[in-house]
Amino acid sequence: MLNKQIDQDDSLVLHTDLYEINMMYTYFKEGISERNAVFELFFRKEPFGNGYAVNAGLSRVIDYLSNLHFTESDLQYLQEQEGYDDDFIDYLRNFKLKLTVRSALEGELVFANEPIVQVEGPLAQCQIVETALLNIINFQTLIATKAARIKVAVGGDGLLEFGTRRAQDTDAAIWGARAAYIGGFDATSNVRAGKLFKIPIAGTHAHALVQAYNDEYKAFKAYAETHKNCVFLVDTYDTLRSGVPTAIKVAKEMGDKINFQGVRIDSGDMAYISKKVRKQLDDAGFPNAKIFASNDLDEKTIQNLKMQDAKIDVWGVGTKLITAFDQPALGGVYKLVSIEDENGIMQDTLKISSNAVKVSTPGKKQVWRISANAAKKNEGDWVSNYDEDPRKFDALFMFHPQYTYINKVVTNFTARPLLQTIFENGKLIYNEPSLQEIKDFTANNLDGLWDEYKRALNPQDYPVDLSQKLYDHKVNLINSIRSKIVKRGY
Amino acid sequence: MLNKQIDQDDSLVLHTDLYEINMMYTYFKEGISERNAVFELFFRKEPFGNGYAVNAGLSRVIDYLSNLHFTESDLQYLQEQEGYDDDFIDYLRNFKLKLTVRSALEGELVFANEPIVQVEGPLAQCQIVETALLNIINFQTLIATKAARIKVAVGGDGLLEFGTRRAQDTDAAIWGARAAYIGGFDATSNVRAGKLFKIPIAGTHAHALVQAYNDEYKAFKAYAETHKNCVFLVDTYDTLRSGVPTAIKVAKEMGDKINFQGVRIDSGDMAYISKKVRKQLDDAGFPNAKIFASNDLDEKTIQNLKMQDAKIDVWGVGTKLITAFDQPALGGVYKLVSIEDENGIMQDTLKISSNAVKVSTPGKKQVWRISANAAKKNEGDWVSNYDEDPRKFDALFMFHPQYTYINKVVTNFTARPLLQTIFENGKLIYNEPSLQEIKDFTANNLDGLWDEYKRALNPQDYPVDLSQKLYDHKVNLINSIRSKIVKRGY
Repeated sequence: MLNKQIDQDDSLVLHTDLYEINMMYTYFKEGISERNAVFELFFRKEPFGNGYAVNAGLSRVIDYLSNLHFTESDLQYLQEQEGYDDDFIDYLRNFKLKLTVRSALEGELVFANEPIVQVEGPLAQCQIVETALLNIINFQTLIATKAARIKVAVGGDGLLEFGTRRAQDTDAAIWGARAAYIGGFDATSNVRAGKLFKIPIAGTHAHALVQAYNDEYKAFKAYAETHKNCVFLVDTYDTLRSGVPTAIKVAKEMGDKINFQGVRIDSGDMAYISKKVRKQLDDAGFPNAKIFASNDLDEKTIQNLKMQDAKIDVWGVGTKLITAFDQPALGGVYKLVSIEDENGIMQDTLKISSNAVKVSTPGKKQVWRISANAAKKNEGDWVSNYDEDPRKFDALFMFHPQYTYINKVVTNFTARPLLQTIFENGKLIYNEPSLQEIKDFTANNLDGLWDEYKRALNPQDYPVDLSQKLYDHKVNLINSIRSKIVKRGY
Repeated sequence: MLNKQIDQDDSLVLHTDLYEINMMYTYFKEGISERNAVFELFFRKEPFGNGYAVNAGLSRVIDYLSNLHFTESDLQYLQEQEGYDDDFIDYLRNFKLKLTVRSALEGELVFANEPIVQVEGPLAQCQIVETALLNIINFQTLIATKAARIKVAVGGDGLLEFGTRRAQDTDAAIWGARAAYIGGFDATSNVRAGKLFKIPIAGTHAHALVQAYNDEYKAFKAYAETHKNCVFLVDTYDTLRSGVPTAIKVAKEMGDKINFQGVRIDSGDMAYISKKVRKQLDDAGFPNAKIFASNDLDEKTIQNLKMQDAKIDVWGVGTKLITAFDQPALGGVYKLVSIEDENGIMQDTLKISSNAVKVSTPGKKQVWRISANAAKKNEGDWVSNYDEDPRKFDALFMFHPQYTYINKVVTNFTARPLLQTIFENGKLIYNEPSLQEIKDFTANNLDGLWDEYKRALNPQDYPVDLSQKLYDHKVNLINSIRSKIVKRGY
């Protein structure tokens, strides 16, 4: 339940750019809507200057695709707005998903210029799902990646997601909390996200509690009388002179009746204050009481605080995570890579661009993660035509797709295909793992990545190479398109 | 309908930080949950360095509050997670909104450090709504404000919202589209937003159409055969040598059968290309065909293109708008300003901070928009105790709340209260205007603002002054709290 305006006969099928439906209409009226097509979703650059991205969003994509249909009010709206012919409206009314969807799993590390999702099936169906897939995966992958960066910064410390109040409306808050959990966070403050996705929830009290009692002692005491686990927020008046002493007083008075977990600081010079607070707690006989910090934190401020030896045990991160503040959008795109021609033959396509990096790679592909058996670390990804299989080879020649002189031969390797079949001809054949399994999978995948790719600043470029066959195919296709344009006299 | 996982007995009441419910529990067990409290929502700085913000989000807030209740699965989840006593669970089960909510209307211009929303009623109820109100208003106000900035940049040109694929999940896309429309956009590409909120929708075709035909001419022709209104996307292969000539060819062939609205450019040097395209269209006899541009635009790139005399008639803005890219969060906060004490007397509160700007203004307030009757422009806002009424005065003394030497006496003015009663003791008493009325209201409000406050870069600070009574009250309360802290020996 999101909103009464939204609940009335609403469906996500209209959660799309109008041009997708206008293109469907052309395809339908021109008799090509059922031609087989392959689209692939990818991004051109990892966000935040990071060395990798953490894939997320598939769960919601599965749900979206599983429920895709046009309601009567959807159809009526489209006909009123766009004046579509009845036969098209009937076509939409009878919409039944026939797509085959392959995807990297949630928690998989993914890189620029390799397909993350591949959608194959009737051209018109491929088209209608574009916008929603991008909307969902761009956001959730962005947040999971930001979370993983922050997780690297905090190391083994506790890490809590506190972003709801600054999230970009309600969905971003809950799906962002889920993506953050996948990326390495321990818990969320959003209760609904906890309930819906089985994420641990965290949170004790705010300044308002202290203000409501107009007295720190009374407020902490009241909280302690009513909760076993206590983290007191100590910066309402004066952290060192009032907040922490009062917290200690209450903790001593309550003794075993509470579990005094620690104190939270939400303002001030965290490096300086946290050291003083640590000493106050230690001196009072609470060496196990933890210091929680929250105040516009991100991986940069956290690293900085750690360099200053700040005594912070648990980090609450909000705004900067949940909005991916320093880069609030991932630029994922969705491109046609192959289309059936009038003779029933699949023709691979690419989009030429004056910008070489923007030239897409044609054809239906697979991504193989190549890892060295000795080091148990990734050597890179090998993007191939869909029917190639590197597991047949003893040695794999890997080369940079632009700077081909950067190359290597890999032996004694394991190759794992990244694109897994989720829907087969419209039928869901994939069993979703639990969120905990996804989270563990992410951590595991990060273990397989050399540290050089994981550092927050200026990581090494992870190799995303093309197979020789795919590389040749791409070069040939570029040449053929260019010669066609030249022939036309443009 | 958003997601099957989300639809099962879900409610937005848990769309909150856990600490809100933990505080409610303390209030309830300690017998103060029903004490009357007043909270106010405000932000401390306009986003993007802008001189004003455009208020948005109230519609969704109304819906949220109107539907606020705990479902059985919500209650079960809370009890399992937090181990609350049965009496509290029963209390939540019987939750019935009793709040009085006053708010600036959607489309109202709002400024830093004045209440935008005021929530009055039982302390526990005030507390539970905090997170969702901030989540909704922070985002929608942010986007409406960004939209207004962009609208100023485009002037009378067409302005389309194209952001869904980069929006932060689905809600941000549709509510962002609505906020953009309020702020000055003409239409959205999101069909669902169009249907739900009655926003005009726009969009024709993407590169995929051209790729599907593997031929620009065939693609444009197919589109033109199936749509009356045509905007051709001309940059799939080569805008000037292929795209525009082909569009012109098709437009000539189709003649009156289509309404050739123009061409869209989505890449390349927009300033240079648009001038060349304009000439090609004019020379071909299509002086009325418009040039649409879309490619990571925002108010800065648009201003820049206009300075270069780019020939662009309609601007499609996506990522930079829908994520508020340069500042993806508005820092709205929600503070307790008054609370009933044990004797039933309302006691005003404030939060002291070592940062003077962060000291909140105590008490239940009203915001008065003061406009000069002669110029019909705003003189500033006058924030008062709730029971003051400047309409009784012939002359109003207005002074800066920090730099009190900045002051003026205003006569022959109109004072309009910004906070309107939306819910009275839990009952909705406000009739929402149509979205079009809200949009017109915004435009009207912007007319009342001097240009100095509207410029995108370094606008003048708009006066948000305190009444003398409120100012004195604040100073007295600060002194009284500081002396109490000193007395305690901290």
